[in-house]
Amino acid sequence: MLDRPPNPYRVFADRDVVDHLADLPEVSEILGGAKRDWRVRDVADGNLNAVFLVDGPRGGVCLKQALPYVRVAGESWPLDVKRANYEAAYLARLAPHVGGLAPKLYAYDPEQFVIVMEKLDPHIILRRGLIAGQRFPKAPEHVAEFVAQAAFHTSDLAVPFERKAADVALFAQNLALQRITVDLVFTVPYIEVWRNQVTAPLAAWAAALRADIGLKSAVAHFRLRYLTTQQSLLHGDLHSGSVMATRDDTRVIDGEFALVGPTGFDVGNFLAHYAIAWYAKPFHAGAPEAIAAYRDAIADDIARFWLTFRRRFLEIWRDEDASGDALPQGHFADAAGQARLETFRQSYVEAIFRDAVGYLAIKTIRRIIGYAQIADFLAIEDEERRAEAQAGALALARALLKRPESFPDIAAIVDALPLYEGAGLDPKRAPA
Amino acid sequence: MLDRPPNPYRVFADRDVVDHLADLPEVSEILGGAKRDWRVRDVADGNLNAVFLVDGPRGGVCLKQALPYVRVAGESWPLDVKRANYEAAYLARLAPHVGGLAPKLYAYDPEQFVIVMEKLDPHIILRRGLIAGQRFPKAPEHVAEFVAQAAFHTSDLAVPFERKAADVALFAQNLALQRITVDLVFTVPYIEVWRNQVTAPLAAWAAALRADIGLKSAVAHFRLRYLTTQQSLLHGDLHSGSVMATRDDTRVIDGEFALVGPTGFDVGNFLAHYAIAWYAKPFHAGAPEAIAAYRDAIADDIARFWLTFRRRFLEIWRDEDASGDALPQGHFADAAGQARLETFRQSYVEAIFRDAVGYLAIKTIRRIIGYAQIADFLAIEDEERRAEAQAGALALARALLKRPESFPDIAAIVDALPLYEGAGLDPKRAPA
Repeated sequence: MLDRPPNPYRVFADRDVVDHLADLPEVSEILGGAKRDWRVRDVADGNLNAVFLVDGPRGGVCLKQALPYVRVAGESWPLDVKRANYEAAYLARLAPHVGGLAPKLYAYDPEQFVIVMEKLDPHIILRRGLIAGQRFPKAPEHVAEFVAQAAFHTSDLAVPFERKAADVALFAQNLALQRITVDLVFTVPYIEVWRNQVTAPLAAWAAALRADIGLKSAVAHFRLRYLTTQQSLLHGDLHSGSVMATRDDTRVIDGEFALVGPTGFDVGNFLAHYAIAWYAKPFHAGAPEAIAAYRDAIADDIARFWLTFRRRFLEIWRDEDASGDALPQGHFADAAGQARLETFRQSYVEAIFRDAVGYLAIKTIRRIIGYAQIADFLAIEDEERRAEAQAGALALARALLKRPESFPDIAAIVDALPLYEGAGLDPKRAPA
Repeated sequence: MLDRPPNPYRVFADRDVVDHLADLPEVSEILGGAKRDWRVRDVADGNLNAVFLVDGPRGGVCLKQALPYVRVAGESWPLDVKRANYEAAYLARLAPHVGGLAPKLYAYDPEQFVIVMEKLDPHIILRRGLIAGQRFPKAPEHVAEFVAQAAFHTSDLAVPFERKAADVALFAQNLALQRITVDLVFTVPYIEVWRNQVTAPLAAWAAALRADIGLKSAVAHFRLRYLTTQQSLLHGDLHSGSVMATRDDTRVIDGEFALVGPTGFDVGNFLAHYAIAWYAKPFHAGAPEAIAAYRDAIADDIARFWLTFRRRFLEIWRDEDASGDALPQGHFADAAGQARLETFRQSYVEAIFRDAVGYLAIKTIRRIIGYAQIADFLAIEDEERRAEAQAGALALARALLKRPESFPDIAAIVDALPLYEGAGLDPKRAPA
């Protein structure tokens, strides 16, 4: 059953971790001391991989190994270890553009499928912080900057098509995790299968969405765009669990889903997980005033993320070398041509927004009536209350997919958040 | 200067051709007799490659070798011989779907970049036939069938995304000829450079199109779609010079530009070259009645090509296994879902038409104010008269790009052909 990785691959135990790092002079230097001084902690937190933090007398590093199966599911769900190749390639490809917004890559071992990178300390996973009610005021701007830089510099706006084709050719081989996206994001939530894990009181909502041809048609539209649009190199899984933050520093991690796809896919995914946090928050513990203030801050984060992305993407396009093959400079050289170029920029970013609205909705739905449930909601122990929180998010998602024209800008989405929060467990009585 | 192909590559002389074929038992069998009985003819006709026809006592074959430069330009314009890899891969990929509509591939040698394939006899290049006023009544339907089969079976409608990703990863490495498309189709015609070869009396038209921001904006739109849309495996250079025909048989040849791109690119390219034939025809020798009748037949060919493509694409989609990742069967299983699927089919094919209209116009323009001029017009020796023929085609192309909404279907394009034929040499006085 299990698709065995090639020899000499082995699943690392603590001792393998230490031995592996000791063979890397640059990393040994960062850790300081000798092997016996290094402390290894298994801190795997995501769904897929083994992750170790290693501390030495001088410093620490993070080691991530792709396991030949889905970690949270076990060996019954095999998963190609080569995904680590693409995470390493993604980090390397973006490093010149995103600077300190991603962890530094120290080493990659393509035989053990092991990435050694910067240890992020005292960063925590953004999602955990959101659930705990901590504020990360800079995270929206930082992630927006990351996405804007990646979206521009890996697109036909910035590079000759041969350079983009090299990314396309490489990441078109990153199949195992893209298959997860195709199945678990775009397909499985809309059919009845054992893998979906729907909170019992949400059964009517799940049934309604699965019967809704208009909604599934919108999903089909965005699914086809995901499959056929090669706009820029994407993270491919940019939710709040793929960001580590402190109050002042933010890092995007876990690029193993990387693909060349529609830019709005990353944008919408990140927005979705702030929206989810907003709907979940009142059902977490806390004083009502504190919760209300925190939600306002999250709503503000949503607007700031998009507005920063939009502003930075346009600034980079205007200011930096836009000598890719998309728009030959010589075609729009005079003053009128320059004016038209600005129109192109505006409509390009508007098209990203349209995509982002769709993917926001689709990513929200898959977290609620699909397989990969999310801690924001799972933290709400009472199933009825959890379902109430989820119903609000589902009602927003349904509106975004079925009435996209009602959401011309990010303000309309932020405005709509409270409209749907009392949606309730009967999808027919919920606002449309 | 010249980017040398790897050893042991050598440019074949007649004797190399014979020696090469003698090493292929299956091919020797087709030819019959022995090496000394084989007659070799150099019949290179296109712009890029060496082509030999070899006849033996029993039968004949065609041998095509990629040269390390553009054949018609000489060694000063180097061109990567690896393009032959992609032509061979394209033939092999489509063979199960297009049957006898392409030449049979007998052998491919990746060291000599030599393709050995079926000799087409008594086929002639469709363009030569169109110029000579010969009728190929089945060519439009046959090429439409070819394009429909390729467009469906290599798309996400038919195959799991992993299969399409394999095509994407392979053909994303076919860079040399795609660079020619990006430059010579989408860029160079719209700027003043030495490579463009504009008939002198057409100078005002060339200047007008190069100054027309609306037109260049439409070109930019279709250029970006070419660069970012991965819908199906394309021929990439599907003009009337890439088709060989008799009255009853039709073959698509020369797939070395192959890429995964927007389906409408092939469709529009083929339409463009019928439209070009229509505008050129009155300036070729012949009795007026015969020419008028022939033009009506070409107009009919244009409509039949599109209508056949449309009908066959939809039939294949409805009838064959549409189990690709684009539209999960389970999402649209009931009667209402089936109705919606039909709406998807209609709008998918309508989007191909919109693309085809744009590429029809862009391919027409590049043949007139760009580098790769075309025999249909070059056959008109008098420059003034040639320019008049070309002006009609340019006026149609301008309208298609600037007023696409005026051309909702193929009938509107066929109807518009005579509207623009007297456009004349002053682009300001020509119908818009």
